[in-house]
Amino acid sequence: MFISVPATSANLGPGFDTLGLAVDLRNEIIIKPSKFLSLSTHGEGADNPKIKKNSLFLSIFNENYKRLSGRMDNFRFEFTNRIPISRGLGSSSAVIVAALSGAYGMAGVKYNKREILNQALRYEHHPDNITPAVMGGFNVACVEGDRVYSKKRRMPDYLRAVVVVPNRTISTARSRTVLPKMYRKEETVYSLSRAAYMTALFMSESWDLLRIASKDKLHQARRMKMMPELFDVQKTALKHGALMSTLSGSGSTFFNLAYEKDAEKIAQSLRDRFPQFRVFVLALDNNGVTTRN
Amino acid sequence: MFISVPATSANLGPGFDTLGLAVDLRNEIIIKPSKFLSLSTHGEGADNPKIKKNSLFLSIFNENYKRLSGRMDNFRFEFTNRIPISRGLGSSSAVIVAALSGAYGMAGVKYNKREILNQALRYEHHPDNITPAVMGGFNVACVEGDRVYSKKRRMPDYLRAVVVVPNRTISTARSRTVLPKMYRKEETVYSLSRAAYMTALFMSESWDLLRIASKDKLHQARRMKMMPELFDVQKTALKHGALMSTLSGSGSTFFNLAYEKDAEKIAQSLRDRFPQFRVFVLALDNNGVTTRN
Repeated sequence: MFISVPATSANLGPGFDTLGLAVDLRNEIIIKPSKFLSLSTHGEGADNPKIKKNSLFLSIFNENYKRLSGRMDNFRFEFTNRIPISRGLGSSSAVIVAALSGAYGMAGVKYNKREILNQALRYEHHPDNITPAVMGGFNVACVEGDRVYSKKRRMPDYLRAVVVVPNRTISTARSRTVLPKMYRKEETVYSLSRAAYMTALFMSESWDLLRIASKDKLHQARRMKMMPELFDVQKTALKHGALMSTLSGSGSTFFNLAYEKDAEKIAQSLRDRFPQFRVFVLALDNNGVTTRN
Repeated sequence: MFISVPATSANLGPGFDTLGLAVDLRNEIIIKPSKFLSLSTHGEGADNPKIKKNSLFLSIFNENYKRLSGRMDNFRFEFTNRIPISRGLGSSSAVIVAALSGAYGMAGVKYNKREILNQALRYEHHPDNITPAVMGGFNVACVEGDRVYSKKRRMPDYLRAVVVVPNRTISTARSRTVLPKMYRKEETVYSLSRAAYMTALFMSESWDLLRIASKDKLHQARRMKMMPELFDVQKTALKHGALMSTLSGSGSTFFNLAYEKDAEKIAQSLRDRFPQFRVFVLALDNNGVTTRN
């Protein structure tokens, strides 16, 4: 079977652990029956011995394939990775969602996307990347018990993501340690109100006030301080016409939303100023994970 | 001139200082030129000497009439109050919005609703009641500088508010003192994610998951503890089919959203159980403040 899963950008500023959307940058996995376990890995991380082992994918696939089929079988896995690793574009969530989709598919068990999403929550306790990775589009997600409750909105085709991928990582673990355990009420209301306002703007396709809605006081600046050039990335993107410019997940990638007509100009200004960073102009994805036999 | 301004229910659970909607329970004010200041007050609070003075209305009206017209004139004001006073149904915000609308109207100065809303923020620093009082409908609001940024969604006519008004108040001041100055990250994310999710549900008219979306960990239970019967009000409303049941503003009123077909049944169950409380079944309002000459 063939599995394709998109990169995702979570938080979107104030939507801490809540908001996320999918972009059209996809990892692909082919799974075939085989006498022996065999693997091939191309693309992002292929020169990294740890990534090449695909141990997260294999452990989730095997656990669920066994649970669903009652069997342990061998397969050949061919990975084509396009999502940068550990850069805040949901590479881990993509692996989890792809492994689960593969296990259901190869076990021949019918499933819906909601089932994949709730299973994914067992491996990734924040819903903001796994939800758009499964569903595609813009998503609002919250967790109640062991379930993800989420609402999707399709993104229009006249928008683009201009994604800036730095040449180094901010580890999620380290990125979480810079966050306080307690927030002042004013910070909480500031971000809560903007997360809700941003949701209303996305749901009604009102893009021109996203600059106001995308401000945050809970996590973004605290994380950006670990890579101070990111403040300049944000300033440059907004100066050249980005509708919003937010840290992608816990970083280090920056996500910029733009009208299609402005996207290349914004990307070029970022490439000129940050030649050491990769800059992608991407369509937004509305499909989420897809599979075929 | 004639001014009509609706009651509002703010917070809606997790939407702390952010979400609010208008209900069709209106204060009406008639303003006429007069040689001397004269006042009449009917309805809610008419037997309360402090309310009868209408000092909040008069000070805002006079300040703004003078600012806008450059004059100081006398008027006759006739107040018909239907919004219960100090019960969390936005009675103060209604007064502020009506006084501003009256001042612009009597001064003969053209204005739009956004202008009234931004002026109202000078007198009430939280946007969650003033925004629906001005705009009508469901509103998401945040404050940036001295402006309210907000998004409105019209409410459908097949829904009703079942409003439970206790026989005593929880003062806003006291209600604020029971709130902590700091929130744990988990509480913050819990409510932030539900405020955004609730927004997505309202914006897409998806009512059936509001029970999940309307849960809060920032303010609601802390305030309800000052009037413990409210836990039973909430339980009763949800048991009899309310789509959501949340403290209205800082209380003491409880706001229940319901399908029209269920509203009377819910109201009756609440009247049976809480004979000392008033229970109203109200349409939702999409007009906000209205004026005519």
